[in-house]
Amino acid sequence: MRLAPLLLQRLFDLGAAHAFGISGDHVLPLYEALADSPIRSILTTHEPSAGFAADAYARLKGIGVAIGTYGAGVLNMVNPIAQAYAEKSPVLVLSGAPDMAGRDPDLLIHHKVKTFDTQRRVYAEMTAANAVLDDPKTAAREIDRVLDAMQREKRPGYLEIPRDMAWADIGVAEAWTAVAPQRDQAALTEAMQEIAIRFNRSQTPAILAGIEIMRLGLRDDLIRLAERYNLPVATSFMGKAVFPEHHPNFIGTYMGAASHPYAREMVEGSDCLLMLGVWLTDTETGRFTSVIARGTLMQVLADEVVISRHRYHHIGLAEILPALLNHSEIKSREFRNDYRPEPPEPDNQSLVAAVFTELSCLDDSRYIFTTDTGDCLFGSVALNAETILNPGYYTSMGFGVPAVLGAGLAVPDSRPVALVGDGGFQMTGMELGTLVRYGVDAIIIVLNNGGYRSLEALGGRRAVWDIHPWDYVAVARALGAEGTRVHTPEEFRTALRQAGERTGVLLIEAVLAPDDISPTLRRLGGKG
Amino acid sequence: MRLAPLLLQRLFDLGAAHAFGISGDHVLPLYEALADSPIRSILTTHEPSAGFAADAYARLKGIGVAIGTYGAGVLNMVNPIAQAYAEKSPVLVLSGAPDMAGRDPDLLIHHKVKTFDTQRRVYAEMTAANAVLDDPKTAAREIDRVLDAMQREKRPGYLEIPRDMAWADIGVAEAWTAVAPQRDQAALTEAMQEIAIRFNRSQTPAILAGIEIMRLGLRDDLIRLAERYNLPVATSFMGKAVFPEHHPNFIGTYMGAASHPYAREMVEGSDCLLMLGVWLTDTETGRFTSVIARGTLMQVLADEVVISRHRYHHIGLAEILPALLNHSEIKSREFRNDYRPEPPEPDNQSLVAAVFTELSCLDDSRYIFTTDTGDCLFGSVALNAETILNPGYYTSMGFGVPAVLGAGLAVPDSRPVALVGDGGFQMTGMELGTLVRYGVDAIIIVLNNGGYRSLEALGGRRAVWDIHPWDYVAVARALGAEGTRVHTPEEFRTALRQAGERTGVLLIEAVLAPDDISPTLRRLGGKG
Repeated sequence: MRLAPLLLQRLFDLGAAHAFGISGDHVLPLYEALADSPIRSILTTHEPSAGFAADAYARLKGIGVAIGTYGAGVLNMVNPIAQAYAEKSPVLVLSGAPDMAGRDPDLLIHHKVKTFDTQRRVYAEMTAANAVLDDPKTAAREIDRVLDAMQREKRPGYLEIPRDMAWADIGVAEAWTAVAPQRDQAALTEAMQEIAIRFNRSQTPAILAGIEIMRLGLRDDLIRLAERYNLPVATSFMGKAVFPEHHPNFIGTYMGAASHPYAREMVEGSDCLLMLGVWLTDTETGRFTSVIARGTLMQVLADEVVISRHRYHHIGLAEILPALLNHSEIKSREFRNDYRPEPPEPDNQSLVAAVFTELSCLDDSRYIFTTDTGDCLFGSVALNAETILNPGYYTSMGFGVPAVLGAGLAVPDSRPVALVGDGGFQMTGMELGTLVRYGVDAIIIVLNNGGYRSLEALGGRRAVWDIHPWDYVAVARALGAEGTRVHTPEEFRTALRQAGERTGVLLIEAVLAPDDISPTLRRLGGKG
Repeated sequence: MRLAPLLLQRLFDLGAAHAFGISGDHVLPLYEALADSPIRSILTTHEPSAGFAADAYARLKGIGVAIGTYGAGVLNMVNPIAQAYAEKSPVLVLSGAPDMAGRDPDLLIHHKVKTFDTQRRVYAEMTAANAVLDDPKTAAREIDRVLDAMQREKRPGYLEIPRDMAWADIGVAEAWTAVAPQRDQAALTEAMQEIAIRFNRSQTPAILAGIEIMRLGLRDDLIRLAERYNLPVATSFMGKAVFPEHHPNFIGTYMGAASHPYAREMVEGSDCLLMLGVWLTDTETGRFTSVIARGTLMQVLADEVVISRHRYHHIGLAEILPALLNHSEIKSREFRNDYRPEPPEPDNQSLVAAVFTELSCLDDSRYIFTTDTGDCLFGSVALNAETILNPGYYTSMGFGVPAVLGAGLAVPDSRPVALVGDGGFQMTGMELGTLVRYGVDAIIIVLNNGGYRSLEALGGRRAVWDIHPWDYVAVARALGAEGTRVHTPEEFRTALRQAGERTGVLLIEAVLAPDDISPTLRRLGGKG
């Protein structure tokens, strides 16, 4: 077996049918192997976009691949990979590197920073595992070690392949079987006893569901759990869409003081809150305004269970959810759901509100949403959809448009929609051209408020936040896409209806009044 | 004294009248201090551009400032700062960070990757010195330590300022005096004796001058040295423009097998080669095709002198150049200069050749050139100009357009010109809008060959290298600039003449035939 073909076949078997990146001379042999592999190479305009696209892909398929040249290429992906680490998305970074032959510590070769090991050391800070494949004897084992860690931890990994190693003979590779994570059956039994007791003596049990439900593919189990015991379910901010919002048990999106009021009442008022896959970040808790009594809390994460103030290791969502579903002693409940989506205010001329209301009406599972950071993210609390990919914890700008590229390729028959502010679009919106190139029929909605208005709403001084105005519609056309500009809810409705009737990449620029912000952002800023 | 005002005043005193970056909530207090400081905030569209702009600025002014928010902001600058490290450009990275108050290792706050220290650890890999200003008692000293190291090593530095430290009272700061680097006077005496003996017994002495001459501001000393002893001077690839090309002692650009033939003959044929500030990188040596007898070589760098195979530490260019100029025993020479710039071939329809020929005729020191990576870089060997900023060692793409922003602001009455390929333009060309916003009258020349043609010329397989075509002229107009498209040398001449007669930001798209590549790139690819 040769190194690169083995590696690429492993990745394809894991679900990576696309790899996002840009070539360069140190990575040429790997790109040549890629051309011969079943994985399709997707050329982005800039490496940060490759990282974001691979992240979105990984969120949907369980593996994403970002590929680039040493230094100038892969060091341009640090921020998206940091986000994938923070938000648990298993993206593999594949980097080329200078030949092993002829390496001398003092050799000055282009794309080298300080030492040959600089780049790997950087990525060690934001990956579950990393390796330089510099030895044919250990390469296959190292590949498996890194992929194992990624699958287990749902975090990024890093593999560096020197030019002259890509085609190295690595002997006969053993068939790979992922190492099953260590599980503690006794801990599970004890935790389940506690959970059952707490449930049964509770008057107002509730579930708060978060993003790890999606990461671990447990959406159906969650729905069955809610139905079996008739439990109210709120979702966290990042967890939007992990539970269907039209479900009779849905009680709203919770994020501390920025919550839907009913969700806040039910979550904070519960005497037995089962938190499933929620990370208690500042954004998830409405800037730490959550008031949840620790003693009432049962927090189940991917690899840990925390009840009140004690912890169980080596068990998590994948064990607790089935155990709950198959439990014989937990009682079912009655509860009257008083949740009502927040009605649009009468005479509401808010275009932001209209955008999310109209998108929520699309009611077609082909639509997959990605949001950037800014009010497109905060406003998406009002978006009722089956799949929403957002950078809700790390909140990097620039995610929206590249993510729609990754999402569209991950789910071939989808109609992906990106929600992005003008600031985020100016960072990575040029991937519009890449969408055109690869025939991904995306809709890009630019919420153009002319500046970094979220920062302003969260307490920034005004003068700094204006953004140089672009003609976004003209940009779309210059890159081979279509574009249209809307100023009113009615114009937006028309544009969206027309978009639904046709194919191709379409940009809709929604020109907002500077004070047109979402209710969530207003609440986060302490105003309302 | 308050922390942020002290820091910003220090930076202004060192020459930083502008800071390039994007805000975010963790860096808000620092941005507020910036608004009150004499330093002007320049908002780029994306952080990688801020890093490149600050790098170009630092190359011209000895200090550049790139500012951004924690994580999602500053981790987006890793690649440009890595380049600044490799190419010795003193860029200071200023990062915001979460409040020190309330930090708990488990706190999940947005923009945090793994630990609160992750970002600093990343930057430790590509800076001369770094510090987190988390203690009012040591802050002033830490600032001075980092700035000192940057000035001494001409490398980037990193300062992280938590939100609640920006306005901290740091007591009365002592006046700062840079620590003079340690110099070894005895080593200088011994080295100068050796150099004088070698010069005086040599038949064919020559100088090869490189980029550190520019970094250390020693251009005038170099000219006087050449004139005092009548020595032939070649410049390296990165060292283009450190010696005037119209000077009677100029003998061409040297880069191994890709050299001007006369420069190669003179440099490799010299029996006593004085190399001043040249890094022997792969690019500088024409992919390691240099044939220079080590025994004939005297290599003077910023902080080291290497003669034949032995080294002197704690002396460098700043000591050797004056010592050579004031030496009483070195003999002057006679030499007949047979250098002729490569004449354009008769009937040459190459638009690439025409671009560099026409730009060389501008003969106006207001023009400052920046190049991106690709044939715009290799082709610039044929560019005769006073100032050229290029990423000739690390060779990151995306430098050209942001660099012209930094250069234009660093030298206010200049007319900066960026040379960029279509690939590089798609990465960071959107800073065109930023040039418009801040009134930097730049000319952007897009050498559009429709793909990653340099990679192809250097040995890549064809299929992968095509780039999605944009209408670059329409993009320029959508961002508020002017644009024009040219196909022939005659059209380019006309466009350039018109550009010279007016102000404003202008993009010239030069549509190239795919096989229209520069002689240097052809030689580097081993073809001619």
